[in-house]
Amino acid sequence: MNNTAKFITFEGTEGVGKSTLIQNLAKHLTAQGIDVITTREPGGSPFAEELRSILLKNNAQMADESELLLMFAGRIDHLQNTILPALAQGKWVLCDRYIDSSMAYQGFGRGFGDEQAVQKVQMLIDNFVPKLPDITIWLDLPVVDGMIRAKKRGELDRFEQQDIEFFERIYQGYQFIHQQSPQRFKQVCADGSPDDVLQRVLKQLA
Amino acid sequence: MNNTAKFITFEGTEGVGKSTLIQNLAKHLTAQGIDVITTREPGGSPFAEELRSILLKNNAQMADESELLLMFAGRIDHLQNTILPALAQGKWVLCDRYIDSSMAYQGFGRGFGDEQAVQKVQMLIDNFVPKLPDITIWLDLPVVDGMIRAKKRGELDRFEQQDIEFFERIYQGYQFIHQQSPQRFKQVCADGSPDDVLQRVLKQLA
Repeated sequence: MNNTAKFITFEGTEGVGKSTLIQNLAKHLTAQGIDVITTREPGGSPFAEELRSILLKNNAQMADESELLLMFAGRIDHLQNTILPALAQGKWVLCDRYIDSSMAYQGFGRGFGDEQAVQKVQMLIDNFVPKLPDITIWLDLPVVDGMIRAKKRGELDRFEQQDIEFFERIYQGYQFIHQQSPQRFKQVCADGSPDDVLQRVLKQLA
Repeated sequence: MNNTAKFITFEGTEGVGKSTLIQNLAKHLTAQGIDVITTREPGGSPFAEELRSILLKNNAQMADESELLLMFAGRIDHLQNTILPALAQGKWVLCDRYIDSSMAYQGFGRGFGDEQAVQKVQMLIDNFVPKLPDITIWLDLPVVDGMIRAKKRGELDRFEQQDIEFFERIYQGYQFIHQQSPQRFKQVCADGSPDDVLQRVLKQLA
């Protein structure tokens, strides 16, 4: 593994174990002497965290495309104030969710994957996001298994409360991205122990 | 003047008298038996008003393109929940600021009118805004005259605190729109008494 600063993002449906993996990977990289920051979306900068609290409120009512644009509004601020400065300092950036969540959740989940919805998300990525991830880890687990894990964690936010068909569409969104960008968007089996998953991810980063 | 429901928006730099004009026009139309609602941007629906309070806070710090996307996030919700339902009920909608403010303030004010900034705003309009105004009244007043009026009103919000060059660029933005869409975007002299201005606007609506 070469030590050039990498921008790595993590994707998956609810309960696939992103947070645990990111913590374990950060620990592993730090032990190798690598400077790492971990961050998340929505959020990751003071302004984007303010938007996050609006987006995840359980009583939030907004037009679907407003949600999509809000995600990108936060993302641009996050990129400008957190991600790009860290990369410029030679740090690795591990980010929980990024552009692919917009494609999966807003393009496929809310937009049913129809051509127009997918194009709108792609257009926002192409025009407003100056930095794509170097590599994205898609933690792949059957939707139902993830839902069971997520429910065990306790209270669900506005996204986690959606019905199972919504998450099946998101899964299809991730499959779509994997077909479009197999080089960047790596499918990693999320089954097994946290260490099993970490080892699979390290192989992808090697 | 035919009484088919019209969607009329009002534009101009600070202090040109939009609010007064909108009140007077609404009164005039109501007296003619026309059903009218008045609304505003940013804002105009519960969710968009929540975004408005973020946008106009004096200590708000956000990337310029985040501001642009936030404006459109609010706009879509406003359109879906306030403007389109009112028009569907046959009401006239008078809206204080709309798409042209994004072009003028974000495209020209923040973006310095450079080609890329203008294209981004136009792309958002073309892809996310399903309803353009039937007519837009641009209240035209020299920037400095408007600033003097705005300062008399008291405390300035985050936009009103910008320097004079910022507002000069916005004025150039309005000139640009007027050249692009002379049929829709009507330049009305904002000098004189409120009734003078109202009479000029009524002529444009005739």
